[in-house]
Amino acid sequence: MNKKVILDVLGGDHGAASTLPAAVMALKQDKGLNLVLVGDKDVISAHKELAPVIDRCEIIHTTTNIGMNEHPVEAIRTKKDSSICLGMDALRTREDCTAFVSAGSTGAVLTGGFMKVGRIPGVSRPALCTKLMTYDKRGVLVLDLGANMDCKPENLVHFAIMADAYWRANPPLMNFDRYKNVKPVPRVALLSVGTEDEKGNELTLVAFAELKKLHDAGKLNFVGNMEARDTFSGKYDIVVADGFAGNVLLKTLEGTGKLFSHELKKAISGPFVLLGKLILAVRLLKMKKNLSEDATGGAILLGCKKPVIKAHGNSGARALCNAILLGRRAGDMNLYGEIEKAIGSLT
Amino acid sequence: MNKKVILDVLGGDHGAASTLPAAVMALKQDKGLNLVLVGDKDVISAHKELAPVIDRCEIIHTTTNIGMNEHPVEAIRTKKDSSICLGMDALRTREDCTAFVSAGSTGAVLTGGFMKVGRIPGVSRPALCTKLMTYDKRGVLVLDLGANMDCKPENLVHFAIMADAYWRANPPLMNFDRYKNVKPVPRVALLSVGTEDEKGNELTLVAFAELKKLHDAGKLNFVGNMEARDTFSGKYDIVVADGFAGNVLLKTLEGTGKLFSHELKKAISGPFVLLGKLILAVRLLKMKKNLSEDATGGAILLGCKKPVIKAHGNSGARALCNAILLGRRAGDMNLYGEIEKAIGSLT
Repeated sequence: MNKKVILDVLGGDHGAASTLPAAVMALKQDKGLNLVLVGDKDVISAHKELAPVIDRCEIIHTTTNIGMNEHPVEAIRTKKDSSICLGMDALRTREDCTAFVSAGSTGAVLTGGFMKVGRIPGVSRPALCTKLMTYDKRGVLVLDLGANMDCKPENLVHFAIMADAYWRANPPLMNFDRYKNVKPVPRVALLSVGTEDEKGNELTLVAFAELKKLHDAGKLNFVGNMEARDTFSGKYDIVVADGFAGNVLLKTLEGTGKLFSHELKKAISGPFVLLGKLILAVRLLKMKKNLSEDATGGAILLGCKKPVIKAHGNSGARALCNAILLGRRAGDMNLYGEIEKAIGSLT
Repeated sequence: MNKKVILDVLGGDHGAASTLPAAVMALKQDKGLNLVLVGDKDVISAHKELAPVIDRCEIIHTTTNIGMNEHPVEAIRTKKDSSICLGMDALRTREDCTAFVSAGSTGAVLTGGFMKVGRIPGVSRPALCTKLMTYDKRGVLVLDLGANMDCKPENLVHFAIMADAYWRANPPLMNFDRYKNVKPVPRVALLSVGTEDEKGNELTLVAFAELKKLHDAGKLNFVGNMEARDTFSGKYDIVVADGFAGNVLLKTLEGTGKLFSHELKKAISGPFVLLGKLILAVRLLKMKKNLSEDATGGAILLGCKKPVIKAHGNSGARALCNAILLGRRAGDMNLYGEIEKAIGSLT
């Protein structure tokens, strides 16, 4: 039985115009990959580049999409034939389907993950987790990025435990193979307003104490509070936050990156600097690629029974391709078992 | 009677090595400025560059500093002869002193502001507020940056009202003179995880409703929820957040800026690109200056009876000079009256 990753063909700002080229890219890059494409069968069949690899694709036909502005719970409840609902149903019921990837409405994907795929027993709340870049290129996992607005300390503890299990389940995901001499124990930090133990708000202060206990019991390599400015420092492998603060972190990063690119572009514009620009162009493009969110492709909803990957709404083919490959890797891990065991060991 | 800005000479990572050159710079730049220098009289007297402007300086002698790692409340209570305590005492008691500027321990400056200078009647909580840059260079006021960890909706409403009063009290501070054709009504937004009205956490959802009421009553130009990625967009003049989220925003901006500078430096390193680098050097330096936090220099603790300015601990002379000039401008506004009136109009 071939394992398959389910792709929401209709989701995202560009729909099939992005998702199908991404599917082709991913199938070419990973010869062992099989896909279930949930979308318009006519559009999919008409996509010429898909023809050479169509034998590794299954199609679930639908033309119903959940829009970005629809109410998530309402949409998941009523639009049974939407690509997100059909995809999630397949993920839940079919043993050969290992992961679901969508660039569609964040709310709908989260709601579908909670309602249709369901939580791993013991997990209080699933959380959105992505890898951000660090100076040393190993990357850092950050969660929750916005799935849970109001968290209790227990939720933050579960986020830490889930990310820890995720990290350990696949060190190469964290570029770990480049650092063979380092013991594979991720350093877990709590997002706060200072590194001192007593810094934070009511939520993080209690969570800090709980995480400290797990550290003292040898269950988690909790290294303490951290500040948002050190996210990329390489000092931490996992950063834990409530969904509101994590979302602010992620979006400030996006906004600042955009501002910086804009200023850089302006700084090197005009005829007088053309020569300098030409010389630097290749380097700057490489830098842009390094810093781009495309490299990760998506965020995983940790804590669901099977991996649900949420790609950015305006993802291009490259970003979506990476999201599909992330889905494939996550689907091949035993995340259910690892997370259930780790959460179970808490009590 | 000459109005005076009080400068904590001992505060900051570099102490007098940064604060005294900053004082000289500010006194040269603003011929109407008078300073009270709180620090070691021997060191101050020995600073040669100060000699030509020493007639505009008064010295309050002390060699006692509050360290970055001391407990703020404890330090303010016990170290009565510290530069922060003596400076705050002068601010509170002396009519000729209009503002206090320090690059010392954030905790101590905030605590001193609360305990020694005191709140304007009606203000539930003072908040740290700074101006961040925007694409159109007008800038955006963001608060609270970390003075209040756990906020109630009422606090966020007061933050909005205070920043609104601050903005209106001195439009030129917001580069307003460049936009003479725009009506001087700041657009106030609430930091959330999406722009839709129903996005947010328990705190912001209630605050949203309260701010909406003020908008409908014509008391505040509240434009709704905003996302951190749009902080620099120029769509907002004031961004309101609780101190935890605001701190995450500010520090992610810092961290991302540093990461980007690092990558840029790496991208244009090596002999092959030397020529290109030389050509671009001037432009890139200008860009760095534009984006640098030095331009603002400091954050103001809005809601205290007199302006307290907190500069970054590692501020250089340029940043501190700007903090002193900010103190002078803020001291010349009638912030006490404007904020008291605005808060009073709520009930």
